[in-house]
Amino acid sequence: MSTTCKAISAESIVQTLRACFPAHERLALHEPFFGGSEDAYVSDCVTTGWVSSVGAYVDRFEQDLAAYTGAKHAIAVVNGTAALHISLKLAGVQPDDEVLCPALTFVATANAISYCGAIPHFIDSESNTLGVDAGKLSDYLKDIAVEDGESYRNKRTGRTLKAIVPVHTLGHPVDLDPIIEVCERYRLELVEDAAESLGSTYKGRHTGTFGIANAISFNGNKIITTGGGGAILTDNTPLATRAKHLVTTAKQPHPWKYEHDALGYNYRLPNINAALGCAQLEKLPQLLKWKRSIYSTYQTAFSETPQVRIVGEPDSSQSNYWLNALQIQGDRSFRDAIIESAHLQGIAVRPMWSLLNTMPMYLEAPAMDLDTSERLEQQIISLPSSAILGAP
Amino acid sequence: MSTTCKAISAESIVQTLRACFPAHERLALHEPFFGGSEDAYVSDCVTTGWVSSVGAYVDRFEQDLAAYTGAKHAIAVVNGTAALHISLKLAGVQPDDEVLCPALTFVATANAISYCGAIPHFIDSESNTLGVDAGKLSDYLKDIAVEDGESYRNKRTGRTLKAIVPVHTLGHPVDLDPIIEVCERYRLELVEDAAESLGSTYKGRHTGTFGIANAISFNGNKIITTGGGGAILTDNTPLATRAKHLVTTAKQPHPWKYEHDALGYNYRLPNINAALGCAQLEKLPQLLKWKRSIYSTYQTAFSETPQVRIVGEPDSSQSNYWLNALQIQGDRSFRDAIIESAHLQGIAVRPMWSLLNTMPMYLEAPAMDLDTSERLEQQIISLPSSAILGAP
Ligand SMILES: Cc1ncc(COP(=O)(O)O)c(C=O)c1O
Ligand SMILES: Cc1ncc(COP(=O)(O)O)c(C=O)c1O
Repeated sequence: MSTTCKAISAESIVQTLRACFPAHERLALHEPFFGGSEDAYVSDCVTTGWVSSVGAYVDRFEQDLAAYTGAKHAIAVVNGTAALHISLKLAGVQPDDEVLCPALTFVATANAISYCGAIPHFIDSESNTLGVDAGKLSDYLKDIAVEDGESYRNKRTGRTLKAIVPVHTLGHPVDLDPIIEVCERYRLELVEDAAESLGSTYKGRHTGTFGIANAISFNGNKIITTGGGGAILTDNTPLATRAKHLVTTAKQPHPWKYEHDALGYNYRLPNINAALGCAQLEKLPQLLKWKRSIYSTYQTAFSETPQVRIVGEPDSSQSNYWLNALQIQGDRSFRDAIIESAHLQGIAVRPMWSLLNTMPMYLEAPAMDLDTSERLEQQIISLPSSAILGAP
Repeated sequence: MSTTCKAISAESIVQTLRACFPAHERLALHEPFFGGSEDAYVSDCVTTGWVSSVGAYVDRFEQDLAAYTGAKHAIAVVNGTAALHISLKLAGVQPDDEVLCPALTFVATANAISYCGAIPHFIDSESNTLGVDAGKLSDYLKDIAVEDGESYRNKRTGRTLKAIVPVHTLGHPVDLDPIIEVCERYRLELVEDAAESLGSTYKGRHTGTFGIANAISFNGNKIITTGGGGAILTDNTPLATRAKHLVTTAKQPHPWKYEHDALGYNYRLPNINAALGCAQLEKLPQLLKWKRSIYSTYQTAFSETPQVRIVGEPDSSQSNYWLNALQIQGDRSFRDAIIESAHLQGIAVRPMWSLLNTMPMYLEAPAMDLDTSERLEQQIISLPSSAILGAP
């Protein structure tokens, strides 16, 4: 009788997945759930003619979001990417600054930095939260950061280190306290990419309320959706005013004059999309329960499987479990075998994102050693997580 | 008995306006009209769960737009500003290029140029079309443009003159033939800002189909609306493919991998907004008739008023009469007197846009002599033009 742990096969992992939700023949990665007032609110927009960027649902959605998250201000915008772009501008990011962000994130995190004319500087993540590894970052900055007047410079590139954008990956809150310490030490502005973490809290406080300005997404694949949409969260009233100004083409308020005083954007969320958002937000507490129950199903199903971890919420955090994920021991070929086999059986699992430092437009961007990101990228598989799978 | 022509008073102009639509107590500048399948299509999105950026209404809206305009390809995006931004990228606009555009336009025309890192170079308009004055431009370029390899340079700034963005102002087609001649002479790419001119044709061909890539807007104040939205029109198939790629975060097609090969954008129109667009487009022929009838009402009402012109469609063009306008003889104070008096009587008239070269962010941008723009800016007043005013 052998006592060595037998390697688990791709096939057996897929079979366990298959058995998790026997009532569902095909498992999408993430489908939205509309079970409330969506239709009524959207029809109301059409009936009243208020579909566009001025309208009562935009105001209400912003108030509801602020109330829900505890942020002082929420500014609704066309998507999470736009929310990040403006948040970075509010943080004072200028052309040629460097902004630290994980290599293991959706490309929009780095793109928003590029839209500011700044350069993403890729940093490593850690396994527990799947987010920024503050300890490793701190050691790295000791090495490369030199004080230069009000801020710190990257001594290798000569550029100002302006800000850091940690991501609450798959909805799991990153460990913010040590990141905030690094920010204080190196005078970095903090902008949270909370695109995926609506409903997630860190030490009892909602993610996206720690940085100077922070981004949420309501893309079709997120926990709630407005079709396309996003929001900027901030506690800083002048910055909130500035944000509203910048996203409405920097037009000065006047009943009829068209005067604009800065390079602005057309980033305001239309009322019809906000109407969807208001209805979705009413359902969020229920969706969070369902998501958590999906996690439990996966957790139970794989509890006996060796070398497989279902990613759970970090200590002192509550996760929205937006996308459940499993981590395997093995390499990219093992991961791909699981993904391919799952797809053949109608289970739309996904790898994480390819690391941003490997994409053509970011090959030249500065990066620290990324060994954990590289491992996670090979080992994590996102699992079907449509809220309906957790419905009682 | 005096034979001199008595100056017309602000009050009498407002009275004539007031009498145009006696059934309407308040006259908004422009309200959308929903009288078709809007509610049904939008509900369909909610019922099927297809509200986001992949969905059947996006495809259909693009096909319907291409069929209606005669463009080979239409790519639906979040708004007209995004459509302009990407059209300029497709035209090859690079950081530090100069792009010619009117000073008398909505700020988005110049902002889109700025998003490319390029510099707007403001040119004059003429009274007939309210658009670019090709003759004056031609004389100006003789003076400032010098050949430099493949392109022409502005000899004053040293920058490449890359493209021109004429605007079909208030829906009136600009005189394109002489502009195209200038483009050929100076190897400028043509990008039409057709944000306001859906339904308008120049010599029998739809505006927005002459340039290499061109922009339409479906903002809430346009002839048809998607809440917020826009489209890129192009006949160039590789550029259409490139456009779709750039507006969907430059993600390479793959069933599960997240690989992006260029700096992309999240500019895709959500399905729920496209659904609105499909319904609105069905109504466009009717809206065009109503718009034309509004023009006739104003034209008839002011036909006897000296020194007042109702802006009509240029020869060889059909205008959508998106925003009707009157031109007065007089200065800004006379215009403001009319606008203020009209507002007091519930008539939401508007001046044109303040000239872009006078706005803080564009004070340093190059500009030619702009005397006609300055006059038009002082003399043109946009009139209430909601389609419903023209309903039988
Ligand atoms: C981590 C992260 N950042 C940013 C974004 C961008 O949000 P959006 O797609 O709404 O632009 C997303 C979602 O797509 C995301 O997952
Ligand atoms: C001339 C012109 N260009 C560009 C735009 C930008 O379109 P959008 O508001 O959809 O971004 C508009 C409309 O607002 C416009 O009138």
